[in-house]
Amino acid sequence: MLRARHLIDTSDLTLKELEEIFDLAHQIMANPKEFSHLCEDKILATLFYEPSTRTRFSFEAAMLRLGGKIIGFSEPNSSSVSKGESIADTTRTVGCYADIIVMRHPKEGAPKVASMYSDVPIINAGDGGHQHPTQTLTDLLTIKSIKGELSNLKIGCCGDLKFGRTVHSLIKTLSRFENNKFYLISPNELRIPEYVKGELNKNNIEYTEVEKLDDVIGDLDILYMTRVQRERFFNEEDYIRLKDSYILDIEKIKNAPEKMIILHPLPRVNEISIEVDDDPRACYFKQAQYGMYVRMALIVKLLGAK
Amino acid sequence: MLRARHLIDTSDLTLKELEEIFDLAHQIMANPKEFSHLCEDKILATLFYEPSTRTRFSFEAAMLRLGGKIIGFSEPNSSSVSKGESIADTTRTVGCYADIIVMRHPKEGAPKVASMYSDVPIINAGDGGHQHPTQTLTDLLTIKSIKGELSNLKIGCCGDLKFGRTVHSLIKTLSRFENNKFYLISPNELRIPEYVKGELNKNNIEYTEVEKLDDVIGDLDILYMTRVQRERFFNEEDYIRLKDSYILDIEKIKNAPEKMIILHPLPRVNEISIEVDDDPRACYFKQAQYGMYVRMALIVKLLGAK
Amino acid sequence: MLRARHLIDTSDLTLKELEEIFDLAHQIMANPKEFSHLCEDKILATLFYEPSTRTRFSFEAAMLRLGGKIIGFSEPNSSSVSKGESIADTTRTVGCYADIIVMRHPKEGAPKVASMYSDVPIINAGDGGHQHPTQTLTDLLTIKSIKGELSNLKIGCCGDLKFGRTVHSLIKTLSRFENNKFYLISPNELRIPEYVKGELNKNNIEYTEVEKLDDVIGDLDILYMTRVQRERFFNEEDYIRLKDSYILDIEKIKNAPEKMIILHPLPRVNEISIEVDDDPRACYFKQAQYGMYVRMALIVKLLGAK
Repeated sequence: MLRARHLIDTSDLTLKELEEIFDLAHQIMANPKEFSHLCEDKILATLFYEPSTRTRFSFEAAMLRLGGKIIGFSEPNSSSVSKGESIADTTRTVGCYADIIVMRHPKEGAPKVASMYSDVPIINAGDGGHQHPTQTLTDLLTIKSIKGELSNLKIGCCGDLKFGRTVHSLIKTLSRFENNKFYLISPNELRIPEYVKGELNKNNIEYTEVEKLDDVIGDLDILYMTRVQRERFFNEEDYIRLKDSYILDIEKIKNAPEKMIILHPLPRVNEISIEVDDDPRACYFKQAQYGMYVRMALIVKLLGAK
Repeated sequence: MLRARHLIDTSDLTLKELEEIFDLAHQIMANPKEFSHLCEDKILATLFYEPSTRTRFSFEAAMLRLGGKIIGFSEPNSSSVSKGESIADTTRTVGCYADIIVMRHPKEGAPKVASMYSDVPIINAGDGGHQHPTQTLTDLLTIKSIKGELSNLKIGCCGDLKFGRTVHSLIKTLSRFENNKFYLISPNELRIPEYVKGELNKNNIEYTEVEKLDDVIGDLDILYMTRVQRERFFNEEDYIRLKDSYILDIEKIKNAPEKMIILHPLPRVNEISIEVDDDPRACYFKQAQYGMYVRMALIVKLLGAK
Repeated sequence: MLRARHLIDTSDLTLKELEEIFDLAHQIMANPKEFSHLCEDKILATLFYEPSTRTRFSFEAAMLRLGGKIIGFSEPNSSSVSKGESIADTTRTVGCYADIIVMRHPKEGAPKVASMYSDVPIINAGDGGHQHPTQTLTDLLTIKSIKGELSNLKIGCCGDLKFGRTVHSLIKTLSRFENNKFYLISPNELRIPEYVKGELNKNNIEYTEVEKLDDVIGDLDILYMTRVQRERFFNEEDYIRLKDSYILDIEKIKNAPEKMIILHPLPRVNEISIEVDDDPRACYFKQAQYGMYVRMALIVKLLGAK
């Protein structure tokens, strides 16, 4: 069991709880059959107030592979929202039908509100530009599984560091482990926000900001690429000017260490050339698979099923 | 087994069948595990020609908790309807894949038509302003479970009594039980239709029409609140003028009996203040839970699974 | 197991494999319980980039009746497609969650592309006007089950033979069996394309083109009716002028042999009068049922589950 009944923010989890989740995920990966009936009498509801096929599939597959069942909606049109119901009421009603709720919402804080009224566990599956804690769990399980540890790492984060909530949360969480160093690689316009740097400084975490990937790629254990999301830009012009600045291709990874791993939260557009996919350092599809397993572990923990 | 193969209108069910359904629902609530594999080889199809998340979730959760499976659509866009297929053909085809069909349709009578062509049981999950029999079953199971009986009750129905099919069906069905009295509380513009009063008169059922909730709340065993649905109004102006007339708040329930229960079909907008939620008389979320159990019982009966 | 890992085109299957699939389908029909847990630990993903309720339901019911599980989307709005992801990436990611993928896509060739990148089997559930191989499997299983064989048949194909991919694929596949003769019944404007006739000629398959159904209906073992699809027409005027040309009614089937069977891929609009439904020769709803069973057999084969 976890201390908290809900997962709204990665910081809801202690380091010990994080390790427990990753250990459980490894047990599930090693013996999936042993877990395939564990949640047989449980229903998970996916309330997706904005579409996110990948995240929804990952949660649904996770629950189904635990023997559990699924109800849900994948976009707001088909929900009661149009009748003006509050998040609190929807949550309480869905809690009459389901044993655990996964919520994706365009408004920051919506899953938090839901958790305040809910009798069943709420998992935040992304709330606007705010939090997406299971993506961070995915990233961490991937790193731990391939690199063997979550400490003593040199992590490069490349691309849109200004709007990318994924990267902020990853940096924040990896900062809780020992002796990690960050390389923040972005155009000037998309540099990491001051508040993230403030936290790094406060905790004496080493980091460096650079503009060119080529200057640091040789030093990295992990290269975390991010998508330049059209929807986060204020105008089309800026998007077009900047979107191609940080494309990873065969040429760029020639200088990368052999043991470096390349991660990406997906979907990608063109920020990683498809020719890179066949390189053994490309781990972003494995990452998607780890995402399902870490969600299985999280569901088990929140339901207290093991 | 029920006499009828379908549930289109609550009047399809005899009083004895109603009692059997409620008894079965109580058995399921007492021993859910005993029923959790009962419909293992059965598929329920949800054909929602208009969205109704709550009703759909309730049916789906009901079937899943019986060990059954689900297929369906939640809005007409994603269905074959656009290709001009008739209800009869859709029903016959879906009956090739599924063992029981739940249909929600904006047109009155559509589920009735479906039932005339279907080889598998059809449940009406709401057809326009017409019938919504499983809502009535939900209301009755809630009353029976909390008050212990469906007779000898003083029932107040408050709000939009003109367009609220839920209330019409509830009154009609509770009239079949002995010695119930109705308090019809509404603004003049939204009074209960003549045909409902006609039936009450014909059957010598006692009722009274009032404009002020305060005048009768002290007498009630049950207060059934209804939503003022924007979509039922002919113009926005009337809606705005009337929508706040019948809001239940802490002040108003001060005069209510201690054992009175407050029901609402949900979703609510603001016709019950959220401060009322913590009052022990507020039973509308329990009602949602009873809704799932009564649907479980209904599915079992219609499939002849027990 | 099948030679190919995917089903993109009916020609991916050898005659022997076709027979094996039909044999397995017959076994499933005879003993459904024996197969009801066979795919218990497997997940099927339905990626429907255009809606097709009937086909989706058929696949989902097939997987559920094998004890398997389902994830998916039923229209592109609710998918990640809007974020500009390639088919290849979507396929690879979904393959991290699911064990088999069913894809419907408005673009010809999309499922083929998916199969080139996928680690899990891909089934083409229709790609534009191109292929819809499981419809052909459905048609063949129906014919084999009712007529006892797939050879020595006189097959009339009636209606829109120009745009109807279903008919093209059916003719092509039935041509691989011995001694079949085709009657191609259509208005001049909607005659079968030259390339199909070219194949028939090349393989010395007997066929005749006629304009009037009445002239040949007396000779047929099978009458395959097709819908005049509004969406395949270039202009509304042509559609209106031609859509009623080939309507099957009680009058027309008076001259048909007693043992002739009437098939239709459904949905129908008005090309078969509903009065025909009660005629014992009408087999189009049975056909829908065979469609589910043949998909069960195909899934079992592609998963190597038996």
